[in-house]
Amino acid sequence: MSKIDKVVLAYSGGLDTSVIVRWLQDTYGCEVVTFTADIGQGEEVEPARAKAEALGVKEIYIDDLREEYVRDFVFPMFRANTIYEGEYLLGTSIARPLIAKRLIEIANETGADAISHGATGKGNDQVRFELGAYALKPGIQVIAPWREWDLTSREKLMKYCEQHKIPVDFSSGKKKSPYSMDANLLHISYEGGILEDPWAEAEEDMWRWSVSPEAAPDTPTYITLEFENGDPVAIDGERLSPATMLERLNKLGGDNGIGRLDIVENRYVGMKSRGCYETPGGTILLKAHRAIESITLDREVAHLKDELMPRYAKLIYNGYWWSPERRMLQAAIDESQQVVNGEVRLKLYKGSVSAVGRRSADSLFDERIATFEEDAGAYDQKDAEGFIKLNALRLRIAAGKGRDLI
Amino acid sequence: MSKIDKVVLAYSGGLDTSVIVRWLQDTYGCEVVTFTADIGQGEEVEPARAKAEALGVKEIYIDDLREEYVRDFVFPMFRANTIYEGEYLLGTSIARPLIAKRLIEIANETGADAISHGATGKGNDQVRFELGAYALKPGIQVIAPWREWDLTSREKLMKYCEQHKIPVDFSSGKKKSPYSMDANLLHISYEGGILEDPWAEAEEDMWRWSVSPEAAPDTPTYITLEFENGDPVAIDGERLSPATMLERLNKLGGDNGIGRLDIVENRYVGMKSRGCYETPGGTILLKAHRAIESITLDREVAHLKDELMPRYAKLIYNGYWWSPERRMLQAAIDESQQVVNGEVRLKLYKGSVSAVGRRSADSLFDERIATFEEDAGAYDQKDAEGFIKLNALRLRIAAGKGRDLI
Amino acid sequence: MSKIDKVVLAYSGGLDTSVIVRWLQDTYGCEVVTFTADIGQGEEVEPARAKAEALGVKEIYIDDLREEYVRDFVFPMFRANTIYEGEYLLGTSIARPLIAKRLIEIANETGADAISHGATGKGNDQVRFELGAYALKPGIQVIAPWREWDLTSREKLMKYCEQHKIPVDFSSGKKKSPYSMDANLLHISYEGGILEDPWAEAEEDMWRWSVSPEAAPDTPTYITLEFENGDPVAIDGERLSPATMLERLNKLGGDNGIGRLDIVENRYVGMKSRGCYETPGGTILLKAHRAIESITLDREVAHLKDELMPRYAKLIYNGYWWSPERRMLQAAIDESQQVVNGEVRLKLYKGSVSAVGRRSADSLFDERIATFEEDAGAYDQKDAEGFIKLNALRLRIAAGKGRDLI
Amino acid sequence: MSKIDKVVLAYSGGLDTSVIVRWLQDTYGCEVVTFTADIGQGEEVEPARAKAEALGVKEIYIDDLREEYVRDFVFPMFRANTIYEGEYLLGTSIARPLIAKRLIEIANETGADAISHGATGKGNDQVRFELGAYALKPGIQVIAPWREWDLTSREKLMKYCEQHKIPVDFSSGKKKSPYSMDANLLHISYEGGILEDPWAEAEEDMWRWSVSPEAAPDTPTYITLEFENGDPVAIDGERLSPATMLERLNKLGGDNGIGRLDIVENRYVGMKSRGCYETPGGTILLKAHRAIESITLDREVAHLKDELMPRYAKLIYNGYWWSPERRMLQAAIDESQQVVNGEVRLKLYKGSVSAVGRRSADSLFDERIATFEEDAGAYDQKDAEGFIKLNALRLRIAAGKGRDLI
Repeated sequence: MSKIDKVVLAYSGGLDTSVIVRWLQDTYGCEVVTFTADIGQGEEVEPARAKAEALGVKEIYIDDLREEYVRDFVFPMFRANTIYEGEYLLGTSIARPLIAKRLIEIANETGADAISHGATGKGNDQVRFELGAYALKPGIQVIAPWREWDLTSREKLMKYCEQHKIPVDFSSGKKKSPYSMDANLLHISYEGGILEDPWAEAEEDMWRWSVSPEAAPDTPTYITLEFENGDPVAIDGERLSPATMLERLNKLGGDNGIGRLDIVENRYVGMKSRGCYETPGGTILLKAHRAIESITLDREVAHLKDELMPRYAKLIYNGYWWSPERRMLQAAIDESQQVVNGEVRLKLYKGSVSAVGRRSADSLFDERIATFEEDAGAYDQKDAEGFIKLNALRLRIAAGKGRDLI
Repeated sequence: MSKIDKVVLAYSGGLDTSVIVRWLQDTYGCEVVTFTADIGQGEEVEPARAKAEALGVKEIYIDDLREEYVRDFVFPMFRANTIYEGEYLLGTSIARPLIAKRLIEIANETGADAISHGATGKGNDQVRFELGAYALKPGIQVIAPWREWDLTSREKLMKYCEQHKIPVDFSSGKKKSPYSMDANLLHISYEGGILEDPWAEAEEDMWRWSVSPEAAPDTPTYITLEFENGDPVAIDGERLSPATMLERLNKLGGDNGIGRLDIVENRYVGMKSRGCYETPGGTILLKAHRAIESITLDREVAHLKDELMPRYAKLIYNGYWWSPERRMLQAAIDESQQVVNGEVRLKLYKGSVSAVGRRSADSLFDERIATFEEDAGAYDQKDAEGFIKLNALRLRIAAGKGRDLI
Repeated sequence: MSKIDKVVLAYSGGLDTSVIVRWLQDTYGCEVVTFTADIGQGEEVEPARAKAEALGVKEIYIDDLREEYVRDFVFPMFRANTIYEGEYLLGTSIARPLIAKRLIEIANETGADAISHGATGKGNDQVRFELGAYALKPGIQVIAPWREWDLTSREKLMKYCEQHKIPVDFSSGKKKSPYSMDANLLHISYEGGILEDPWAEAEEDMWRWSVSPEAAPDTPTYITLEFENGDPVAIDGERLSPATMLERLNKLGGDNGIGRLDIVENRYVGMKSRGCYETPGGTILLKAHRAIESITLDREVAHLKDELMPRYAKLIYNGYWWSPERRMLQAAIDESQQVVNGEVRLKLYKGSVSAVGRRSADSLFDERIATFEEDAGAYDQKDAEGFIKLNALRLRIAAGKGRDLI
Repeated sequence: MSKIDKVVLAYSGGLDTSVIVRWLQDTYGCEVVTFTADIGQGEEVEPARAKAEALGVKEIYIDDLREEYVRDFVFPMFRANTIYEGEYLLGTSIARPLIAKRLIEIANETGADAISHGATGKGNDQVRFELGAYALKPGIQVIAPWREWDLTSREKLMKYCEQHKIPVDFSSGKKKSPYSMDANLLHISYEGGILEDPWAEAEEDMWRWSVSPEAAPDTPTYITLEFENGDPVAIDGERLSPATMLERLNKLGGDNGIGRLDIVENRYVGMKSRGCYETPGGTILLKAHRAIESITLDREVAHLKDELMPRYAKLIYNGYWWSPERRMLQAAIDESQQVVNGEVRLKLYKGSVSAVGRRSADSLFDERIATFEEDAGAYDQKDAEGFIKLNALRLRIAAGKGRDLI
């Protein structure tokens, strides 16, 4: 164990990370700096101050990172239409690099020699926090209490609280959920409990951010979403900041039962894991972004993006936001988005979001050419013959040599 | 113009292809063989016989290809979770190679030296028919009347009918749709009309295969879909043939408002085109297939499939089903599907399909390892430290050399 | 045939393009503007002026494009380590987009409504010229005489010269080669003649730019090549302009028998074609660029580049330099090259080029960590256990479930 | 430390693995089974028997795996034209999965509960051995002495020998090389020593398998290599078994100075490492395989292979031979090789190998179409116009809308 004088802890104000404060103080004999961020998880962050003070913490950071989060992390990711394993919108993954960055900034400001977090040794989040931290400050030390201590059950944890006089009301006042949850402006996630049986359906009262499709309004909601350079900037003509945009889309989606997801995913550390997610605004945004791209992006650019996307998603899921390969891909993605401007009209209804119209000054849709009517020479149908003939040439030669495809 | 003695025509029995029969006879002075296939388009094919006879056709082929279509084309494609441009399930594209193959088989049987079809010079279908034909019979000649004749408007076409005494009731008896439509067991498509304005919303009465989500039942429908080697084989325990399976899924999806899609897509011939699609069964199948894969496929296999999928989709969209590169990709895909066995429980409700449960004797989901509870040593959390440290090493070295990622 | 008033012709000054001047004047009754470029083909371009004047051309452009060619086309391509089909360094392909661009600039300056070129209807160059022209000026018309006229044999061509009094000494004064050749600063190519039999070995006297390895010096030549941002800037400490750099490398390579290549390649228009190439400087540059990247690039960036490269090569080979997808890839590639600085020491000897040393202020090579000796804690070997254990986890779970890999 | 009763050790018979035998016996109090394989490393394996016996080993396995190695590992890899990071032919990587497989087979036969190897904690080989072992027998335990013990310097090791009476002449009788070397039928590798400075040129006397190009014969050697299903089967008409084939190619290559390589590569464990390699036969084989593919493979198949290759190479380099994703890629690769039959004529000369001729009954090269002479209608040059026009359409539309590419 290296000598550690000061550690910056990602502190939620909840019971677990409060225990970690005390455990770090006791185990490492070091000073603890707490860092609590509002990234839209839907809970007050200010109460964390008093709790940290009660634990003897002298340097307390409480930041509102919502705008930075959406502007610099969520939106860049959505420019790529990012989905992990065909389904997951990466709501947890994309929040981690921001936390990692802020931990390191605070470590630099406070002269801390280590960072710490409350993620377990089985999950992806430890990887995301730590890869980010190492990439931004290679000499930093990392303390991951869940990998080190022996408080491996709830009872041991509660006993530790008792012994160390950590007020149990540090625990959330809300009805204890049977699920392990995590939330930020992009989504809320559920794991554990009955979800550990992938055959068991999630209970209706688990979902917190969206009404069920059954309970959603019987009439559709229409909105128009405006994009500039691939990012959404206005709803129905009202310009909104990134965080306000995502909040608004979450409200619209949640009210219409949009964005629930129930999957089994592959963790970077090697096991499969069942997770349920609500991503109301993100689900709308993805649909809309694809729609505005559909009229503004060149075909081959769109296809190249589609082929690169799974790699990009995997990078973010695995915790490599802060990496040169992510920057390289981002450069390509961002290059493509300069023309992604215009409006998409969306229909939200009982769990579904559909693009029903799209228009843009940068549209490449050419009605003159696309029309089924006479096009006055905009397109010469005879060109198709040569196009087909030459595309077929290699196949014809092969068939002529006896190659059999059936 | 080469001398052509006999041509096999993909004949629907409708007005357009009836005109083509006569036009081929007149223009090429050749015998016409008609070929009409039931691929689940939802119209009787037998009436085509009398119409062809009335036009003087002596060799008439009418085939029920539904089982072959689903078994040998639709299912292999779904093994790859195939989607074109993030949205389109390729319902038109995947039917074409079967038609091309049958045209060539009939050309071989009848000694024809050419094939012909009713696809226009602006679309993808001409490419798909002709690439397939050339790949399977390199010396075949292709006549594409829409690229050759001057019947470029409805009026000219009707006038030709009059002059050549083609009964106008060859035209479909149904209310003339303002849309250009195409259907087979996988989907029905709509193009043209007001859809040529991508900002205009499709009218509700356009959709034919599905009720609107609004009109769908107020209670969800649950089904269990069973897979073997990546293909669906039973619904709620009832084993079904491929075509019957897809019909049943279409009914279930259509009744619950599932599978509508409104997109602008990029055609192979170079222009953008607006299309609306109903793919009720396919939409369910895709969701279910991903769900059964989520517990049975290895992570890296799943990711490799995701990265290859856009290429595979593009091949099919562009008409390269009958190509060695499609076979090469199919070999990889099929290799992965031997373990894709098990059951998925699905919830269908007002336009949405969700996987709510999945189980399999081939499941790689390991509750013992995934659990949030104590796992009795199934997983050593300390391993994560080394895992992260070595994955971070290249990033730390770079940061140590002053590389800046922010 | 559209009405054409003025056409810009890519004019070499040779017999074929001289015939085209006259043929364009006669066939289209239009004015011809000639454009002759020095891109390092090794022949004087100024003589083209008198020839064009003799043919009645009034607007004559003769440009030295060598620096632009290497700086804006060759070097950006080499940043990607571009090779087509594992072998070909794209020496012809990369010169075409520059010619296309210049043709369009001249069309804009002279008010021409068409461009023309001397490439045949079987090759890739017609595609490269025309795709570039259309991409840069969508309304431009293109005249490709070899696809239109009936001068399909050498005799017909000579007869046309006679009839139209085109001096036959317009033909190159040099011994007529049995090969079709093309040259620019990056390479010289040979096709046709006995090469049309892929089993026949090229004759020694075909090669023009390099001595045979047998005839190369018996002692190796060592050079040190310096890179900045992925481009070579100095040889043995002497800074050189891009074109001068490539000329120098060609001399060094040619003298040492480096850069000969004999392949069968796949043309974009669908057939296979045998080609022999000499790319002396490019062969050295590729080796050196990989070597400097080997110590300066992050591993994952390098691998991403390797995976994207074949696509990028195909784009250039097929003529899509002037495309948004090439720009998108270029953005990613260029992003990676900011750190590609430093020196490579190379050994040139009888046909081989080897990197024997590489160093850089941006090196990520860490002797402390890489050493076989004790590393004083720079690397903790115990980390490897966790790294392997977690990377193996998915494989172990699968094996535990009975999956068999042998 | 788990209780281990019996361990199978990959035993070379050299000093290091002899120390490991004793260390395992002492540290784990377990029985050691030694396994020594002839994979063409060029040293007798039989002497390992007496050494193992002297160390008290009772179960001794000595296998000649040369044919299996080349047939089931080297050749399948070469079907993909596999190169890691643009340069490295994976000579070390591809031998490891065979050793891993055999270790597990012997563990199964002898009832051992662990395997052990002499690879260090910094390298790739530990990963390759252990991933393979875990994938084939998930409950196996792995002992990696170099990660556990404190014999971290040569002196400590020699002292241990003295204390435990391990005869020092177990050390190789040959002049001690300053390099860390590894050899098998595919290659010999050198690391360490002065190579740890990537600017230092390797000394001429380091290389053991090839003469220097300078010392190679002054006249070229020509050979004809015949392929069946992508694998080489005969040289100059003489059919050879896989191992004999590779031995023969090694001799031919080595005699002509072919196959030396000096690179800096990226290890899976995160650091860069300098390595020198001699792969004489493999270098010839790669060139020849590409040449036979050039006339027999379809273009798109070839391009798909090229795009997949870097992934496949990375899998093998990183130790994932025994993985479902490697099998998936192999299925695609092998599917493509059925037509890769024919002959390649090669010129070997002073460090270079060139393909100078290729022919095949499965050739897709069509002289009739490729010819520069009149082709009697085999190819209609006018088809090129439509081909180009439609390929340009998207670019023209974009340019028409004002998109600027320069």
